Amino acid sequence: MFTHQKAPQFAARPEGPDPAFARKFQEVLGGKWGEMTVAMQYLYQGWNARLPGKYKDMLMAIGTEELSHVEMIVTAIDQLLDKAPPMSADDTTGSTQAAEFGAANPQHTIVNGGGAYPHDSNGIPWSGAFVTASGNLMADFHLNVTAEMQGRLQVARLFHMTDDPGMKDLIRFLTTRDHMHQMQWLSAIEELKADGLDGLPTPEAFPLEEEFDEFSRVFIQASDGEAATEGRWASGPAPDGRGDFQSALIQAHGEHTDLAPGDPRLYGTNPLMETKGLIDKAKDALK
Amino acid sequence: MFTHQKAPQFAARPEGPDPAFARKFQEVLGGKWGEMTVAMQYLYQGWNARLPGKYKDMLMAIGTEELSHVEMIVTAIDQLLDKAPPMSADDTTGSTQAAEFGAANPQHTIVNGGGAYPHDSNGIPWSGAFVTASGNLMADFHLNVTAEMQGRLQVARLFHMTDDPGMKDLIRFLTTRDHMHQMQWLSAIEELKADGLDGLPTPEAFPLEEEFDEFSRVFIQASDGEAATEGRWASGPAPDGRGDFQSALIQAHGEHTDLAPGDPRLYGTNPLMETKGLIDKAKDALK
Amino acid sequence: MFTHQKAPQFAARPEGPDPAFARKFQEVLGGKWGEMTVAMQYLYQGWNARLPGKYKDMLMAIGTEELSHVEMIVTAIDQLLDKAPPMSADDTTGSTQAAEFGAANPQHTIVNGGGAYPHDSNGIPWSGAFVTASGNLMADFHLNVTAEMQGRLQVARLFHMTDDPGMKDLIRFLTTRDHMHQMQWLSAIEELKADGLDGLPTPEAFPLEEEFDEFSRVFIQASDGEAATEGRWASGPAPDGRGDFQSALIQAHGEHTDLAPGDPRLYGTNPLMETKGLIDKAKDALK
Amino acid sequence: MFTHQKAPQFAARPEGPDPAFARKFQEVLGGKWGEMTVAMQYLYQGWNARLPGKYKDMLMAIGTEELSHVEMIVTAIDQLLDKAPPMSADDTTGSTQAAEFGAANPQHTIVNGGGAYPHDSNGIPWSGAFVTASGNLMADFHLNVTAEMQGRLQVARLFHMTDDPGMKDLIRFLTTRDHMHQMQWLSAIEELKADGLDGLPTPEAFPLEEEFDEFSRVFIQASDGEAATEGRWASGPAPDGRGDFQSALIQAHGEHTDLAPGDPRLYGTNPLMETKGLIDKAKDALK
Amino acid sequence: MFTHQKAPQFAARPEGPDPAFARKFQEVLGGKWGEMTVAMQYLYQGWNARLPGKYKDMLMAIGTEELSHVEMIVTAIDQLLDKAPPMSADDTTGSTQAAEFGAANPQHTIVNGGGAYPHDSNGIPWSGAFVTASGNLMADFHLNVTAEMQGRLQVARLFHMTDDPGMKDLIRFLTTRDHMHQMQWLSAIEELKADGLDGLPTPEAFPLEEEFDEFSRVFIQASDGEAATEGRWASGPAPDGRGDFQSALIQAHGEHTDLAPGDPRLYGTNPLMETKGLIDKAKDALK
Amino acid sequence: MFTHQKAPQFAARPEGPDPAFARKFQEVLGGKWGEMTVAMQYLYQGWNARLPGKYKDMLMAIGTEELSHVEMIVTAIDQLLDKAPPMSADDTTGSTQAAEFGAANPQHTIVNGGGAYPHDSNGIPWSGAFVTASGNLMADFHLNVTAEMQGRLQVARLFHMTDDPGMKDLIRFLTTRDHMHQMQWLSAIEELKADGLDGLPTPEAFPLEEEFDEFSRVFIQASDGEAATEGRWASGPAPDGRGDFQSALIQAHGEHTDLAPGDPRLYGTNPLMETKGLIDKAKDALK
Repeated sequence: MFTHQKAPQFAARPEGPDPAFARKFQEVLGGKWGEMTVAMQYLYQGWNARLPGKYKDMLMAIGTEELSHVEMIVTAIDQLLDKAPPMSADDTTGSTQAAEFGAANPQHTIVNGGGAYPHDSNGIPWSGAFVTASGNLMADFHLNVTAEMQGRLQVARLFHMTDDPGMKDLIRFLTTRDHMHQMQWLSAIEELKADGLDGLPTPEAFPLEEEFDEFSRVFIQASDGEAATEGRWASGPAPDGRGDFQSALIQAHGEHTDLAPGDPRLYGTNPLMETKGLIDKAKDALK
Repeated sequence: MFTHQKAPQFAARPEGPDPAFARKFQEVLGGKWGEMTVAMQYLYQGWNARLPGKYKDMLMAIGTEELSHVEMIVTAIDQLLDKAPPMSADDTTGSTQAAEFGAANPQHTIVNGGGAYPHDSNGIPWSGAFVTASGNLMADFHLNVTAEMQGRLQVARLFHMTDDPGMKDLIRFLTTRDHMHQMQWLSAIEELKADGLDGLPTPEAFPLEEEFDEFSRVFIQASDGEAATEGRWASGPAPDGRGDFQSALIQAHGEHTDLAPGDPRLYGTNPLMETKGLIDKAKDALK
Repeated sequence: MFTHQKAPQFAARPEGPDPAFARKFQEVLGGKWGEMTVAMQYLYQGWNARLPGKYKDMLMAIGTEELSHVEMIVTAIDQLLDKAPPMSADDTTGSTQAAEFGAANPQHTIVNGGGAYPHDSNGIPWSGAFVTASGNLMADFHLNVTAEMQGRLQVARLFHMTDDPGMKDLIRFLTTRDHMHQMQWLSAIEELKADGLDGLPTPEAFPLEEEFDEFSRVFIQASDGEAATEGRWASGPAPDGRGDFQSALIQAHGEHTDLAPGDPRLYGTNPLMETKGLIDKAKDALK
Repeated sequence: MFTHQKAPQFAARPEGPDPAFARKFQEVLGGKWGEMTVAMQYLYQGWNARLPGKYKDMLMAIGTEELSHVEMIVTAIDQLLDKAPPMSADDTTGSTQAAEFGAANPQHTIVNGGGAYPHDSNGIPWSGAFVTASGNLMADFHLNVTAEMQGRLQVARLFHMTDDPGMKDLIRFLTTRDHMHQMQWLSAIEELKADGLDGLPTPEAFPLEEEFDEFSRVFIQASDGEAATEGRWASGPAPDGRGDFQSALIQAHGEHTDLAPGDPRLYGTNPLMETKGLIDKAKDALK
Repeated sequence: MFTHQKAPQFAARPEGPDPAFARKFQEVLGGKWGEMTVAMQYLYQGWNARLPGKYKDMLMAIGTEELSHVEMIVTAIDQLLDKAPPMSADDTTGSTQAAEFGAANPQHTIVNGGGAYPHDSNGIPWSGAFVTASGNLMADFHLNVTAEMQGRLQVARLFHMTDDPGMKDLIRFLTTRDHMHQMQWLSAIEELKADGLDGLPTPEAFPLEEEFDEFSRVFIQASDGEAATEGRWASGPAPDGRGDFQSALIQAHGEHTDLAPGDPRLYGTNPLMETKGLIDKAKDALK
Repeated sequence: MFTHQKAPQFAARPEGPDPAFARKFQEVLGGKWGEMTVAMQYLYQGWNARLPGKYKDMLMAIGTEELSHVEMIVTAIDQLLDKAPPMSADDTTGSTQAAEFGAANPQHTIVNGGGAYPHDSNGIPWSGAFVTASGNLMADFHLNVTAEMQGRLQVARLFHMTDDPGMKDLIRFLTTRDHMHQMQWLSAIEELKADGLDGLPTPEAFPLEEEFDEFSRVFIQASDGEAATEGRWASGPAPDGRGDFQSALIQAHGEHTDLAPGDPRLYGTNPLMETKGLIDKAKDALK
């Protein structure tokens, strides 16, 4: 159950107006790696967790914090859109204004009347497909690490695209929390291992006897880029402790299979002899 | 530049028919974590890499291998669809056939005429949004690890949903390569660190002086789940080597901001005094 | 800023397992009119509201409540998926089991490992496009009324598709809150009018002098359904108090416009004389 | 069955060219609240109506009228794109032209060769998900009211973003019809009530005895915005005539439920004791 | 401008109920190649046509006819959904009913209350992206031919999936019109050539001098499938009348390009020397 | 199975930077008619082909070539994004720079760090729905012809939107291959006919006796555009060799059907007598 208080976790006060940056900042709100994604992802992982205790509780805590970040970003974008949507051509006498006019998101004014929405920097709606909650915490925590890295990368880039002190402060706060959250997920991965809950390869419970051992430590070279085998993924001890990495050129381990002709009732293109009788078969099928 | 040979990397020969499993297997072809995603993701990361050498070459190698996996899975689904799409109610006299009839994907027959397509197990099209190539290899390789974990998890689950020996062999091959590829990306992450190309927090080049240090090692508790602070993410040395983790209840670090009234030409709901004059303002605006 | 507590607003305890109903119940979680939509819609309307006070505060309250409903529904679906995902054909010896097998969502097991996700009953991801926050509360509150009506309609239908007492109780709770929320939005619409914040036609501030008065109270008959003019929308006083409804057959109030030929550099199909010179023009353009 | 005549219901003759406004005007053609949506929504509601007579006939009439609006808007956008798509940098010597260049939709030229398409102002395709035809006319007519309000709001905003007299005339026509259609749907809602076809709460036929009466008139305060209870939705007689509104703080009416451990064949993260035996269970499952 | 009459172009009277076939038939209503697509595609091509006369008028005629087909299919699906949506498990005592239960679309009942909608057979919404109106009639008429072929193929397949005489009659009508429309578009292509409006390669106005002639008639073999050069596309006179087809193995006509290092403000992975100075550069950029 | 070599089929060396053109060029990479589509479409058609030999082998060859085009375009866009993404307002002092600033895709920098991605010129992700592989080669090859025509049309238009010699060379190469590929598919269609594999109407195997012959050669006039019957599709011998084209006004060949009332458990709006008893029925249904 959730409760809300009006005072924000961190207050951004952009000077604005800057509709072009408002459009750009939508990326970290409603983009694939934005705050909507991490808020929902952590909450769904938490709700679905079938292991009670520290991991589940931690997921609920961080998911709820990210929801508070959604709120901060929405409020910041609203303020960037204050007062100055360039609504007619005569606002564009200078080249900076012209640049802004072109770079703005028309839906910010036409659809939202000067407000943010759960869409990315090109106006594409946020999608539930961005959320992964697989039931396997080891696999999901690795995704969470990258989510915080992609997120920090994007706000770091945005830091260089604005001079607004309020926006810069908000970005500083966001990079800091992404820093913390990267460490949080990396620590949680170590803890999962230490607790014996999963390991490498994930999922560890699927038995290695079912694998084809001859393919399990081979880097397969399918390109002519010679440097590819210079990395440690192509020689030396493999992290599963069961042997050394090797490398090999890609090769075919089987013959090409000709597919069987299709059912005549599907009217696909079949081998000629089939095709010649197809009309009769189709007619028979119709009786 | 690519070339193709008809003999496959690994040949699957399902006994089939099994249209219900054909639908399920679409998930690892055209789902968010399927082979279309990893093939395209690794290729785009490779093409866009601005660092020539082993990482870029390795990305091209593995992307090309994954494309060969797309081919194997398509061929396997085609064979599962051979001969027996249940096309009318009288095919469903037994309960197993009835189950199959209900669980099949109607587009496999109506649209594709007995063939696979780049869609997931519910028939939703594969999306270019599944591909991430951020230009930062550290962030992206963490995503690649999780892609191989999610992928191995899904094929491990599918292993228990079929008795077809050909399909089981194909799944064995796929879990094995996912095992290798998990190790490959983990090794590449270590190598990026060893080569001094990036570190924690990612991106390392964004200066920590710009962060708010007081928020950078604090686990923030926003839920009442008491166990959340029992993990190593809430106390002890933080992985950035700059201090200890702490924990704190979520709190507001700022006051709520009232937004400014909107431009009258946007016809939003504004404070009453504003609203009373809105019609006049709107009329003025129209002159 | 949000906080969370683990005890739910209302606890559903389905007996389960029922993977077929789990799929159906996704509709009121991640469908267009599900709880994800109302939670996000009310929160975005609240955040973006430029009128401080009772409307904005009420929006934050109800949005936060709906988020608590998201939580209840996720938990209920998780329990329906407990213990019995039919994972192989031999689970389907009876016809009820066969029906369930066919009606289940394969992503519930393959992707989520027995958990809910923000998708609808066909597995289509929830979309940020479902959220409307136009900045005009009168227009948005009318949407909110229908959201609660569509929502109550869907749970009322679902009530007849399950015998599970825990699910029936959850549905009773949801229909009750939808009942309340319909009344809440209808009352808020009345209050907006009473407070003089907007009226009919919405937005009231756009001046009627700019309209073509001769078209503003005419029901236009474009079909031959004779009963269409028997409703009160075709005769009697119009709600804007400025005259009576009338009806008229649809008619053309203008001549067809022939479009100008296209730019030759766009290589569209232009009138013949144009086309004859197109190659020359294209060549000129290339100089 | 439909027939078409080339003369339009209302002829717009924009002076053009204005590719930036052409992009913006796509919003009311192919956006969520554009003419494609209302045309298709009213037609599907009409076709699916199981009550013959005035409501069904009226739906077919207005749906067909809206289709004629689609035609007018397409033609107008085509004319805005006439003659002057800025196709190279040397067209942008002035700042107004530069603004236009940036604000244009590249697909208008590259894909459509100077024509409109069923997409919104950011180029996102119109979606069948925008159409609701629930079978319940009371719920759907409330959606239709808001569709006309959102539509009038958007064209009112667009009115201030152009000086083209032809476009202004077209917008005047559209606001006028939206004015009429708002009244039409409000009248139809009253008529549904007067005819005894549905009421509050919608659907009225779902029995109130199945609800939890104690939750049916309570405004639940889940935020600390104090003004939220000052509205008439929190005290005084409720519109269902069965009692007074009340307000209460959000509270938990149940205990948190720990989910059961997952099936080992799903390889999720389970409680430790479970996990320890997971490999054995998985192996057993594989026999 | 459109008008509508209630009598349909062709009346389908399915005996029903058949919710499983109702789901399947959605494919030819709201699928990529369904009637929504051809109706909208022909209308947009007609509206956007910049060549007045027979082609434009014909497009408006056929687009309007296809809209009448949308109506017939919606009505047919509605009747298939009459009376018998299996709403509880006790409707599934027989295996045919069980099959139907599994194969039904849950949104037909939960969302639409027994009605059709503009979605495909997996419930995925129709998309405006399915419509192409390029402004070049030669390119578009080739698309229209295939649309009628794909459409006829799908209804021919559906013919074998039902025994309902009313549905079979509707399918007969649809295949017949698809037959006519294939001939219509093929004739229109011939007429475009005869009228000198475009030719091969399309668009003919783009000058062949700008092409690299050495690549314009060569079949490039990039696979080891030996039979590929046995077709007439690999030898003999080419249809452009300018020489003979040839074949050649795919080969590289250029060297690999190393990309330049990225801007340090983008925090991508750059060559090591670059990376070493990256933090300094980033700091400089921040001043 | 695929292999890759680093040297490209054709090397483009744009001078750049040109972020605005980089955005535009995404259309022919990740748009509906871009290289991602043809690469995947031809490969899926080839994999699914149930007729071994020249057609299948040819499909694999051309699909693999198109994949090599994807690579060339990605590399070209990367180079256009080199060095100069305008990241702050002070880069826009001139009007050309202002135009570029507005016309750039913000995701190219924020998300990709200066790289291409599988999205179109408005940033909308490429979709698996763009791929058609119906199993019927005659229908699919007609789609392939139009794909090459739409593709050539788009690059011809782009040719006029850049002065960069490297980009112009790449466009020349692409138009040339589209020229060849148009001829390739047209030749393959002729060969399919000559080989007796399919014909007109497609699919030829569906028996004409099942059609309604009276509708099979009639152009139906549903608009008042008088010129529509002047084309050869409305008179003279029809291409199926079975009679002459005719034309007729659209007319109703059946009566309007009133739908049956809906199941009371669906709570739709039913005829009044039904509605009066609906509450009782609903209650009965609840027992």
